[in-house]
Amino acid sequence: MNYLTGKTSDLPGNHLSLANYQSTHFAYQVKDKVATITLNRPERKNPLTFDSYAELRDLFRAMCYADDIKAIVMTGAGENFCSGGDVHEIIGPLTQLDMPGLLRFTQMTGDLVKAMRACPQPIIAAVDGICAGAGAIIAMASDIRIATSRSKTAFLFTRVGLAGCDMGACAILPRIIGQGRASDLLYSGRSMSGEEGERWGFFNQLAEPEHVISAAQSYASNLANGPTFAHAMTKKMLHEEWDMSVDQAIDVEAKAQAICMMTNDFHRAYHAFVKKEKPKFEGN
Amino acid sequence: MNYLTGKTSDLPGNHLSLANYQSTHFAYQVKDKVATITLNRPERKNPLTFDSYAELRDLFRAMCYADDIKAIVMTGAGENFCSGGDVHEIIGPLTQLDMPGLLRFTQMTGDLVKAMRACPQPIIAAVDGICAGAGAIIAMASDIRIATSRSKTAFLFTRVGLAGCDMGACAILPRIIGQGRASDLLYSGRSMSGEEGERWGFFNQLAEPEHVISAAQSYASNLANGPTFAHAMTKKMLHEEWDMSVDQAIDVEAKAQAICMMTNDFHRAYHAFVKKEKPKFEGN
Amino acid sequence: MNYLTGKTSDLPGNHLSLANYQSTHFAYQVKDKVATITLNRPERKNPLTFDSYAELRDLFRAMCYADDIKAIVMTGAGENFCSGGDVHEIIGPLTQLDMPGLLRFTQMTGDLVKAMRACPQPIIAAVDGICAGAGAIIAMASDIRIATSRSKTAFLFTRVGLAGCDMGACAILPRIIGQGRASDLLYSGRSMSGEEGERWGFFNQLAEPEHVISAAQSYASNLANGPTFAHAMTKKMLHEEWDMSVDQAIDVEAKAQAICMMTNDFHRAYHAFVKKEKPKFEGN
Repeated sequence: MNYLTGKTSDLPGNHLSLANYQSTHFAYQVKDKVATITLNRPERKNPLTFDSYAELRDLFRAMCYADDIKAIVMTGAGENFCSGGDVHEIIGPLTQLDMPGLLRFTQMTGDLVKAMRACPQPIIAAVDGICAGAGAIIAMASDIRIATSRSKTAFLFTRVGLAGCDMGACAILPRIIGQGRASDLLYSGRSMSGEEGERWGFFNQLAEPEHVISAAQSYASNLANGPTFAHAMTKKMLHEEWDMSVDQAIDVEAKAQAICMMTNDFHRAYHAFVKKEKPKFEGN
Repeated sequence: MNYLTGKTSDLPGNHLSLANYQSTHFAYQVKDKVATITLNRPERKNPLTFDSYAELRDLFRAMCYADDIKAIVMTGAGENFCSGGDVHEIIGPLTQLDMPGLLRFTQMTGDLVKAMRACPQPIIAAVDGICAGAGAIIAMASDIRIATSRSKTAFLFTRVGLAGCDMGACAILPRIIGQGRASDLLYSGRSMSGEEGERWGFFNQLAEPEHVISAAQSYASNLANGPTFAHAMTKKMLHEEWDMSVDQAIDVEAKAQAICMMTNDFHRAYHAFVKKEKPKFEGN
Repeated sequence: MNYLTGKTSDLPGNHLSLANYQSTHFAYQVKDKVATITLNRPERKNPLTFDSYAELRDLFRAMCYADDIKAIVMTGAGENFCSGGDVHEIIGPLTQLDMPGLLRFTQMTGDLVKAMRACPQPIIAAVDGICAGAGAIIAMASDIRIATSRSKTAFLFTRVGLAGCDMGACAILPRIIGQGRASDLLYSGRSMSGEEGERWGFFNQLAEPEHVISAAQSYASNLANGPTFAHAMTKKMLHEEWDMSVDQAIDVEAKAQAICMMTNDFHRAYHAFVKKEKPKFEGN
């Protein structure tokens, strides 16, 4: 079995159209420059498998070159977000692997988070129901999170004997909700409710279950029709300034923003403002 | 036009009195070691211009040498804080500049934030009404923020086609309100209300509109009459420990606090405590 | 007087039992792999002395080798947590020291925080009443904090003429409650109430005064009976990823989690899950 080697990406090139990408291990649809990725094994609460991990990693890596996708929505089918790594299809096989095999797996899952943070499109997670293990990580690795009050988000690695340090959680979660609350979730593996998540800054909004996906798509659509070159720069800088000094960050922002001031979007916005019109953004 | 070269500072020397500084592009007054800087073009909601940026930068740089200023209040005239870079006096001219000119501008605005973080005086922002763009940055770059519930704070760069990475925002804002909430404000450019800001830790207090400036001055006055040598050390260490390891930070604090234990303020406080008196601090 | 040199540790070796450790300057008891350390000079609200600092530092350093302690509760006797460095036994003598002596003291207190962060056992603070100065630091340096609503936590260094940069506070406190709220507490020295602390993420839970210690012990007991090898890895990674880039953190977590996947605890958890049983963890 060569699950862990990953398949060769069928998405080469520096310019790429992903509007018609045919997905294999999840649902994928594009509307108005927004791609919606739906984990869709609802009878099992949308677990991840070696194959779906690999395809998600490859797709997010390809997104760097996708000219026709400007924002991404991540969600799950059937009133749950994602139950994490499948017990039978992932946990069981992992107990049979030697160290090189285990490391190949943890590097693959980490590479998914790296690809999510590296792609230029902002990612909006729509979270209902169960959001556990690697599912909680995918939500955490998104840019914006919209959830329902009944959602249950658990970094439950500790419940299966593992550590909280999975796919970047010990670095990223404390920066979202604070070091103390992150420690509680990572040590205990307990569920965070939707209300807690909103109060702690993990979730940006709560929505009714029937509206949570459309709320995420609406947020994504607003960004996709905005200055997407500038949004990509914002995402890159949020990532790169993570461990810089304040003065270094100010200096790299001076360069990044000067680049954005050369865009047509900036010039169009100024001229629209002078004419008291609404600016049109084209991402260039 | 040489707006971008900045004027030569008229504030040289290692010891400097700024109690009688005569400001040109904003109002400036000093009372009991507290300087209050008031952006004062209320008919336009106190926008910034190339000249006011440059004068603010020079003044905050000079503050390093000002012996008679121990805390600073930043505020705006006429029920608004600051509407950011003036559309006609800044945005328009920027659309005419080449890359070296743009970079000179973004470095100048970044230098203002660097100077605010580098000066030894704690800065208290009193925020009412509109607090937008570079205005939101000035509030963010302050040490303490007091606002009204009707205040509207927007990092609205994205609305004019620019990125959220302006003057350090992608580094500083996430450390104040968390990575998720900062991402929302920086991608969407939407307004944060006073209540949201207080709930998220952006604002330290809310005050009634008629009291917000006096609340900030009262906070500043308490600090100015406290152990100001120690306060300056606190500010320096909050800045320098930003991207250190925990163990490094503990080591540099051991040195910083040992220095403070050599001050007369520390000795006076001990003797006052023994005599059950209120300590008098002199900043030495 | 050689208070500052510290005593030679009587706790050598790579494998160590601390279940029967006889403490000198505080109370110490162990039940079911949980050590409870109680600062116990209640008539003075449990201040620290040179000797209790040194013994705490030595004990936490020894915890790295203690096979029979899996979690630690820090608390105080008589309805107060800790009033910080004793005015007569620490502050007074400090005013008599030269710079090398002062630095030896601040390095010793910093070494206590380093030892708390470096020991593999999660530390749960149970905070009632006064939690001030070095007491607030000990709470901050713990992993989990449970408090009463009547508790008063004050980083009051500024009140005795010192800076907020004590024992790592300017680095650690902003990561727990945000840069703005931390600045307020460190500049002003004011008390944070229990409710504020819970709202800001400093405290993980509030409990009634009569239950706060048992709540902390119950939390500790759950961790001590969980996958303690993995918990120690979580604690280590929360510490080491503090100032890494996101991508670096993801890479080190890939290795750390792969190591945890080699443990019997992980394998046992999988097999228990398949049999629909509750997993038993043994920390190996």
